[in-house]
Amino acid sequence: MQGIMQDWPLTVDKILEHARLQNADREIVTRRVEGNIVRTTYGELYNVSKQVSNALKDEGIGLGDRVATLGWNSARHMAAWYGTMGIGAVLHTINPRLHPEQIAWIANHAEDKVLIFDKTFLPIVEAIKGELKTIKTFVIFADKDTMPENSLGAVAFDLWIDGRSTTCRWGDFPETTACGLCYTSGTTGNPKGVLYSHRSNVLHTLVTMSKDAMGMGADDVVLPVVPMFHANAWGLALSCPATGANMVMPGAQMDGASIYELLDTEKVTITAAVPTVWLMLLTYLQENNLKLPHLRKVIIGGSAIPENILRAFEQDYEVDVVHAWGMTETSPLGTLGTLPPHLVDADVDTRMEQKLKQGRPPFGVELKIVDDDHKDLPRDGETSGRLLVRGAAIAAGYFKGDGGDVLDEDGWFDTGDVANIDQYGTMQITDRAKDVIKSGGEWISSIDIENIAVGHPKVANAAAIGIYHPKWDERPLLIVQAAEGQSPTKEEVLEQLEGKIAKWWTPDDVAFVDEIPLGATGKINKLALRETFKDYKLPTA
Amino acid sequence: MQGIMQDWPLTVDKILEHARLQNADREIVTRRVEGNIVRTTYGELYNVSKQVSNALKDEGIGLGDRVATLGWNSARHMAAWYGTMGIGAVLHTINPRLHPEQIAWIANHAEDKVLIFDKTFLPIVEAIKGELKTIKTFVIFADKDTMPENSLGAVAFDLWIDGRSTTCRWGDFPETTACGLCYTSGTTGNPKGVLYSHRSNVLHTLVTMSKDAMGMGADDVVLPVVPMFHANAWGLALSCPATGANMVMPGAQMDGASIYELLDTEKVTITAAVPTVWLMLLTYLQENNLKLPHLRKVIIGGSAIPENILRAFEQDYEVDVVHAWGMTETSPLGTLGTLPPHLVDADVDTRMEQKLKQGRPPFGVELKIVDDDHKDLPRDGETSGRLLVRGAAIAAGYFKGDGGDVLDEDGWFDTGDVANIDQYGTMQITDRAKDVIKSGGEWISSIDIENIAVGHPKVANAAAIGIYHPKWDERPLLIVQAAEGQSPTKEEVLEQLEGKIAKWWTPDDVAFVDEIPLGATGKINKLALRETFKDYKLPTA
Repeated sequence: MQGIMQDWPLTVDKILEHARLQNADREIVTRRVEGNIVRTTYGELYNVSKQVSNALKDEGIGLGDRVATLGWNSARHMAAWYGTMGIGAVLHTINPRLHPEQIAWIANHAEDKVLIFDKTFLPIVEAIKGELKTIKTFVIFADKDTMPENSLGAVAFDLWIDGRSTTCRWGDFPETTACGLCYTSGTTGNPKGVLYSHRSNVLHTLVTMSKDAMGMGADDVVLPVVPMFHANAWGLALSCPATGANMVMPGAQMDGASIYELLDTEKVTITAAVPTVWLMLLTYLQENNLKLPHLRKVIIGGSAIPENILRAFEQDYEVDVVHAWGMTETSPLGTLGTLPPHLVDADVDTRMEQKLKQGRPPFGVELKIVDDDHKDLPRDGETSGRLLVRGAAIAAGYFKGDGGDVLDEDGWFDTGDVANIDQYGTMQITDRAKDVIKSGGEWISSIDIENIAVGHPKVANAAAIGIYHPKWDERPLLIVQAAEGQSPTKEEVLEQLEGKIAKWWTPDDVAFVDEIPLGATGKINKLALRETFKDYKLPTA
Repeated sequence: MQGIMQDWPLTVDKILEHARLQNADREIVTRRVEGNIVRTTYGELYNVSKQVSNALKDEGIGLGDRVATLGWNSARHMAAWYGTMGIGAVLHTINPRLHPEQIAWIANHAEDKVLIFDKTFLPIVEAIKGELKTIKTFVIFADKDTMPENSLGAVAFDLWIDGRSTTCRWGDFPETTACGLCYTSGTTGNPKGVLYSHRSNVLHTLVTMSKDAMGMGADDVVLPVVPMFHANAWGLALSCPATGANMVMPGAQMDGASIYELLDTEKVTITAAVPTVWLMLLTYLQENNLKLPHLRKVIIGGSAIPENILRAFEQDYEVDVVHAWGMTETSPLGTLGTLPPHLVDADVDTRMEQKLKQGRPPFGVELKIVDDDHKDLPRDGETSGRLLVRGAAIAAGYFKGDGGDVLDEDGWFDTGDVANIDQYGTMQITDRAKDVIKSGGEWISSIDIENIAVGHPKVANAAAIGIYHPKWDERPLLIVQAAEGQSPTKEEVLEQLEGKIAKWWTPDDVAFVDEIPLGATGKINKLALRETFKDYKLPTA
């Protein structure tokens, strides 16, 4: 028997329609690439987005066509987002930090027809223009006066939409229609595209709005430092208009001084970014003896929070830190570090220990861990296994079928992470499956070793990898990049680990390098390290 | 082009599964009909619900079959809820306050096969047992020791499930499958059944969880005074487990002393009920000089909030009042009185004035007002029109097609209310469409007149109805029930209205009655009043 309820397709255009009707005056504040700050509203954004839709339709863009952006966070980027998705086309947010060759490869693979970009990235686009096989229209986020010279025949965004109708039919297609495309840059093979649907994005939006998730309301002011080209904009391009929260868009300037200025002048209450950004901000705050009186919550994801950042926000600035874990494939919200009820009143060290873990999944995300034979493992907070995830906003595969079938027979997606889960559902990542070091049949967590090693003041960065060992199969080698002007010894580094990890986890050797290689998203490139150290001989082997 | 995201049907069994995995220790505290307080957990509720599923399957209950309850709020009622819905059967929550004849009519119309009820209602069930044509199994929420004697061959709930397996496959059907049935008792014609789907209930749950809606988190303690048989339990039977909030179930005792005891001993943070309950609580608090230190939010719906209740909670007890409007047909959340951003820092009178309105719809609910020709009316906060609603958790019709097609060609549902909407989406109900008084072609709001009249200390209740007038078509008659021991005069009542309504809205006469008739849900029965006063002659006519 079917329920007798309305057929109301979950399409993202309804989110901006809601913002227009309920929160037309709420603001989107943008720091433009030119440095000046401009203000608009959800009411205006709605109209501009409709104009984008009409401009796109004039370019022949319709259902399923891909429209790419290479853009910083801005109100214009938001208009490109809704203008594209509203007509059933697919917004492809390209990460401009990728190698230009990779950008070209991705744009060709996605068969993007239009590219809208910030002039910051003009040199990149000019450099690869000969390789871009499908893009017919280039648009630059600029007006007549700020439009740069170019050899692309590009049009200024403001002129492109100027005078167009603000009327255009949105929605009116199935909720499973694709709306967004975001490539993950794996360390092996070509990037793979995650193709979000209207349904998955609307459901993700509703999930993020709950109190224990991001929990924003109409009277919040949200500063998404996390770029819109990272993992579906962490959902913020959708959840802010859905609630009516003001948005503050930092554009290209994410240094401590610039972010502080926005936090302070716009009275930001919630902000979100990767740890690196917060390190810059905290340094700036400390050097200038500043406080954060308006900010109530900082959402930190992308990589694990270092303890000093967590404690600085919570203890020095009285800002609630929500550690979040997710992937491009999870839209991206997977878990959140909001304290579980039994720890809300715990002592500070217990709370901080909990908050260093990746957190708990909200309703809508299912997690479990399995062993190498794909058998369920206990939720005891100790046993580690491969982390699988299931939910309405979790990828079922990749664009064009790349990577093949990625779900198991019960519909679970393998995250590639190794984690434990406790009886309250708190998940803690202990390693990447491909980075795990297997010694004598047992797993050693490279992440644990690295996190402790970087706590030494003489260490700037550290990476643990497995090196072949005739007896144990693999033993850990710790690779260290010294802090500027420092020369730590092997003994000093190993002493740092003593008593904090199981004795058999202790690396067999420490190697020093000038610089630990990082990938496009700032994570340690272990593939490169394994290549460099492939013939390394451990002293004990 | 379709997105490539997981097919994860929105079924309500996933909510309790989530509670089990994340918040197994969070509690459901019940005051039983015997008066004692018992405690269980979501982990236990999950097991008991699975046992209910297995008991129902043994009764031959499966997909689409209706299981009825006549029950107070309790953990056992929650187990009946999830045990029924989990296997794709339909939980039909019958309102025990209806006339027994109407209960029998509804049970027969729904073709309920099982009836599970509190022993409070045994006399009702015994009285109508001969009329119940489809119910084969009677279960009483009781154990061996508290089971009453009966002539129904009823079984005690605890014995019914005792020893059964806690394993049972849930879900695994389309998300549009029916899961709940709730009849609306109109003042005319037979009751009509609203048939909720798994999808509508899951989406409603997500919407209610957002900060500006009910906004509960895992560390909240929620006391739903509103009975589960009222309008889909206001969604609380779903949103509490979805977040992990503790539930405190008041059973049959909703007097001021009993509710205060639970608020205090269980440290309740959020509670929800109709105004009548709060009047009883506030009287008790005042008489005993008590405070509400734990409570942070009270959700008030079912009928408009009287200003004295609003001000008492907000000003005397520092509890945030969220005025909510909805209907059985809207699952029921339609609007919420959370302050819009531009009024958060307004003076207290402005805030109170705003909070007396019905509030703003969350994302997921669309509202508009239309004139008699079904043309859209402006959102200016003044123009009144028929209120239409659209959304994923709004009824598209009634069970068995009763009432025919209820949606217009664009899918809007007519609420039967008359309202205005302002530029921020704040909706204010000015009347029921069928109660509106039409004088000289213009509408007079009966509700406005009544709300002001009951502000007079000598007035207990008041109802305005239209009486035939040869010149104006209709003119208002105000019918007054005096407060105990009081004898207000016509002049005193009309003086109360002076300056607060347009002069031409002033009732042409005031009639006094011993008691204003109320319907089953506590609302004024205007149909009865119109019948009583159908030959009334106005002095000015």
